[in-house]
Amino acid sequence: MALPSDLEIARGASLKPLDDIAAEMGLPAHHLEPYGRNVMKIDLGAIDELADAPRAKYVVVSAITPTPLGEGKTTTTVGIGQGFKHIGKRATVAIRQPSMGPTFGIKGGAAGGGYSQVVPMETLNLHLTGDMHAVTAAHNLLAAMIDNHLYQGNQLALDQHNITWRRVMDVNDRALRNLVVGLGGKADGVPRQTGFDITAASEVMALLALTTSMTDMRERLGRIVVGYDADGQPVTAEQLQVAGSMAVMLREAIKPNLLQTLENTPVLVHTGPFGNIATGNSSVVADRIGIHCGDFLVTEAGFGADMGAERFFNIKCRTSGLTPDAAVIVATVRALKAHSGKYRVVAGKSLPAEMLAENPDDVAVGAANLRKQIENVRLHGVSPVVAINAFPGDFASEHDAIRQVAEEMGARVAVCTNVADGGKGAALLAEVITEAAAEPTDFRFLYPAEASLKEKIETVATKIYGAADVEYSPQATRQLDTYERAGFGKLPVCIAKTHLSISSDPKLKGAPTGWTLPVREVRASVGAGFVYPICGDMRTMPGLGTNPAATRIDIGPDGEIVGLS
Amino acid sequence: MALPSDLEIARGASLKPLDDIAAEMGLPAHHLEPYGRNVMKIDLGAIDELADAPRAKYVVVSAITPTPLGEGKTTTTVGIGQGFKHIGKRATVAIRQPSMGPTFGIKGGAAGGGYSQVVPMETLNLHLTGDMHAVTAAHNLLAAMIDNHLYQGNQLALDQHNITWRRVMDVNDRALRNLVVGLGGKADGVPRQTGFDITAASEVMALLALTTSMTDMRERLGRIVVGYDADGQPVTAEQLQVAGSMAVMLREAIKPNLLQTLENTPVLVHTGPFGNIATGNSSVVADRIGIHCGDFLVTEAGFGADMGAERFFNIKCRTSGLTPDAAVIVATVRALKAHSGKYRVVAGKSLPAEMLAENPDDVAVGAANLRKQIENVRLHGVSPVVAINAFPGDFASEHDAIRQVAEEMGARVAVCTNVADGGKGAALLAEVITEAAAEPTDFRFLYPAEASLKEKIETVATKIYGAADVEYSPQATRQLDTYERAGFGKLPVCIAKTHLSISSDPKLKGAPTGWTLPVREVRASVGAGFVYPICGDMRTMPGLGTNPAATRIDIGPDGEIVGLS
Repeated sequence: MALPSDLEIARGASLKPLDDIAAEMGLPAHHLEPYGRNVMKIDLGAIDELADAPRAKYVVVSAITPTPLGEGKTTTTVGIGQGFKHIGKRATVAIRQPSMGPTFGIKGGAAGGGYSQVVPMETLNLHLTGDMHAVTAAHNLLAAMIDNHLYQGNQLALDQHNITWRRVMDVNDRALRNLVVGLGGKADGVPRQTGFDITAASEVMALLALTTSMTDMRERLGRIVVGYDADGQPVTAEQLQVAGSMAVMLREAIKPNLLQTLENTPVLVHTGPFGNIATGNSSVVADRIGIHCGDFLVTEAGFGADMGAERFFNIKCRTSGLTPDAAVIVATVRALKAHSGKYRVVAGKSLPAEMLAENPDDVAVGAANLRKQIENVRLHGVSPVVAINAFPGDFASEHDAIRQVAEEMGARVAVCTNVADGGKGAALLAEVITEAAAEPTDFRFLYPAEASLKEKIETVATKIYGAADVEYSPQATRQLDTYERAGFGKLPVCIAKTHLSISSDPKLKGAPTGWTLPVREVRASVGAGFVYPICGDMRTMPGLGTNPAATRIDIGPDGEIVGLS
Repeated sequence: MALPSDLEIARGASLKPLDDIAAEMGLPAHHLEPYGRNVMKIDLGAIDELADAPRAKYVVVSAITPTPLGEGKTTTTVGIGQGFKHIGKRATVAIRQPSMGPTFGIKGGAAGGGYSQVVPMETLNLHLTGDMHAVTAAHNLLAAMIDNHLYQGNQLALDQHNITWRRVMDVNDRALRNLVVGLGGKADGVPRQTGFDITAASEVMALLALTTSMTDMRERLGRIVVGYDADGQPVTAEQLQVAGSMAVMLREAIKPNLLQTLENTPVLVHTGPFGNIATGNSSVVADRIGIHCGDFLVTEAGFGADMGAERFFNIKCRTSGLTPDAAVIVATVRALKAHSGKYRVVAGKSLPAEMLAENPDDVAVGAANLRKQIENVRLHGVSPVVAINAFPGDFASEHDAIRQVAEEMGARVAVCTNVADGGKGAALLAEVITEAAAEPTDFRFLYPAEASLKEKIETVATKIYGAADVEYSPQATRQLDTYERAGFGKLPVCIAKTHLSISSDPKLKGAPTGWTLPVREVRASVGAGFVYPICGDMRTMPGLGTNPAATRIDIGPDGEIVGLS
């Protein structure tokens, strides 16, 4: 039987007053501010006030290398949060805010799915409390100050051809990828080539996700490097005297948002950095609040464990000072079949019919990817748990094949059916996570901050991705030298590569070895606090398709939204 | 004695719980949604529910033709609202939302001034409830859909060289005025020239200010003309199938925001359309709520009475169905001296020293402008009240000179000192407004909807501006013909001209006659519901100066904002 649409299910939800939810979390009422009827912001004073409250177990949810369809990581994260209630534990969920661009592009809403959703889903998917827009505004004020600086005489001697700061907007708009600004007359600025990225790709967004306090945010904003001067020296937002205004614009956006699941589990929704060129993790401040609000804090890390979880461990945890107690790896039958290399899965299209037949052997072949992702979690000293996200067409033999691989690797494992069944479909998974999180932890970073940037890149490439070697373009080598000289060498690395393979080649499935990671270019998000080598084509501004979701979303006759999912 | 800064005064305010303020207004609690601690949104259900409540007297606040410094119209509007309380009347104030672009450009905050401010001023000046950003997002989704339409094959045969829809952003950024988008490779869209306006100049903003309901908004969005096809026929947002998504994006932005003055007078803040190419008035829906919430609704109309008030009468009132009971014309000594034609006032600079000397004769010479603006109000059958907004350096003889002119014209008049004294400084003005509003009204539009566009333009030009004639460029004539044929001839006109003269030449002071209004070009805001002839250079995207406010605004050591005003 087909499920009702996500929007229909969400609309039938019985929401609990957020005041009550916050009280159960132990959040003091004076740190809460309502935003509309079913959303609140939590001010950062809560971090200090909760410091002595008991610490929750910290669970990060990641995945095997996904197909272009995604493997239901957000849905499983929400489901786990719901599931804990069914085993008598109090959990808080932490996720990223969805970007509106893709909502009106290909996706419709993004708030979990089926009976594991965050509500109100319309608010979550549309503006929420305006944090994304505040990031856009702060980012673009800096851009305007750069172009104004050129126009007013360029006192800092910014090299017009080496300005790295672009503009952003939360929309899928390919026409904005590359443009020439400053055309018109003399009063209309200095012509130069630049472009827009989607807001999720903004360094300001990454910075907001990693900052620990208002003071820290103000300092990080000042450290943002917007380009280089004629001598190749970095020019910062502080030098342009705009970091203070950017901080002022972000003073509400720094506060995490409180929503709930369909089953009234508290959900902290905060920030939405890209998963390829940035960390793909929700905010440090949300987790620092949530870690004192129950028995478990379940936080999501974008893409596969080689991407989101690696950054969670080595970038986010390094900043937050929090250490995880367990790492969930979401696996699906379809993704493991795809990792056999025998099928081609395309976004927006149905699965090939032959993938739907019962075939535990294909699952076993593709399981190399799962094995490697389990190993990657272990490399950080964290207990892995495999969550088999069940789909209606799966066969028991296929689930068993996954279970067998997990058990061989010594990982705990459980099937979850929370999309169809809500929290009770993830209760068993929650039990298994509880066991894993009860083990003594031995968390460790993959590399020390003191290692050189090249050492860091090579460590991630060989240990996590399974590469044999790393190859740097002359440009990348020059850039790495520049960054080391400029003092950015202590930053962690966030390797921008495809999420569709554990390698840098989206066509390589499973867990390929013997390949070389090509570093084409290296950029520095100095304000956010990481250096990101570019390994492959990274698209930072999506486009719209032939039939965008925007053509289906509307106000229905009853005044309610239709078509959002 | 110098006043403390606006921000210092605002921070010392004693705010009243908005629930209490709303209760005093008679607003049902179930139509209120809190947004942060001291802001609420009011849903449009309140309009129907209040329909039978007594109707307040409706007062529009306009001004003589201002200097580039502005004559304190918002401040006086706020002061009048405060003043009513001092004479035992309940008033509601309605103003536009300030644009963030200028806040970080030249102005700092814009929430009134001194002891007549709207609070919390930081929230008002920074994002508020995100309405501006929602307008930006909806506007730019339409732009993305246009460029995607070209990219996907251009089924509607849009003429690439006749696309009138640009993009918007709430920032002062001259480099975005003229640009070429769609550069890069084949996958990056179709190259074409376009540009950005500031969000206040968006037709979506004007539309939001004029709409009467969610259903009406959805229809208006569909009617937006984005350009013309190969046959010269208009192409609409409805044809691009995006109007529904735009409405969904605006479903919170359509709700007016409730704030308060320093003296706890309710203030409805809603929408912020430009005063030159759009109406410069706050929203119809806010006024339709406020009209049933007390004894007086005090609403502001941008720029001089030839601009904001004329549009208030002929565009906003035509849409809202509400008719005004009195019109306040704010006059200052400095502006009337400037209208003598003897002085040059420049934005961002101090007044010329010789303007500060006692000189009632100059005031009398410049009073021609005041006389004409009084006459303009009378042309609509509305009782005029002259408000002399007192500045610290004014002389009594100069105030008397203004008073004498007003009385000669049969207008009521009062001095107000609310910037320094708060509401009690506007109590006398409130008394005088009460008398004016008690007179029987004889409100009439300046022209019937059925008149042709040329007749409408000529009526406003000759009767309101004092022009002898109107001259159309060949392009303007062609465009007017196109619009009449397309069925837009029934729309009112919103003449875009300088606000610094009652004529179309900013250098002409007082009330010049014998001049000709040159109509260079005519544009149609079909969704918003008006046609706007362009008479002179209209800047729709401001730039930043040599020393932008953004360099002074920051987070202070105590975590509070500094430098906002």
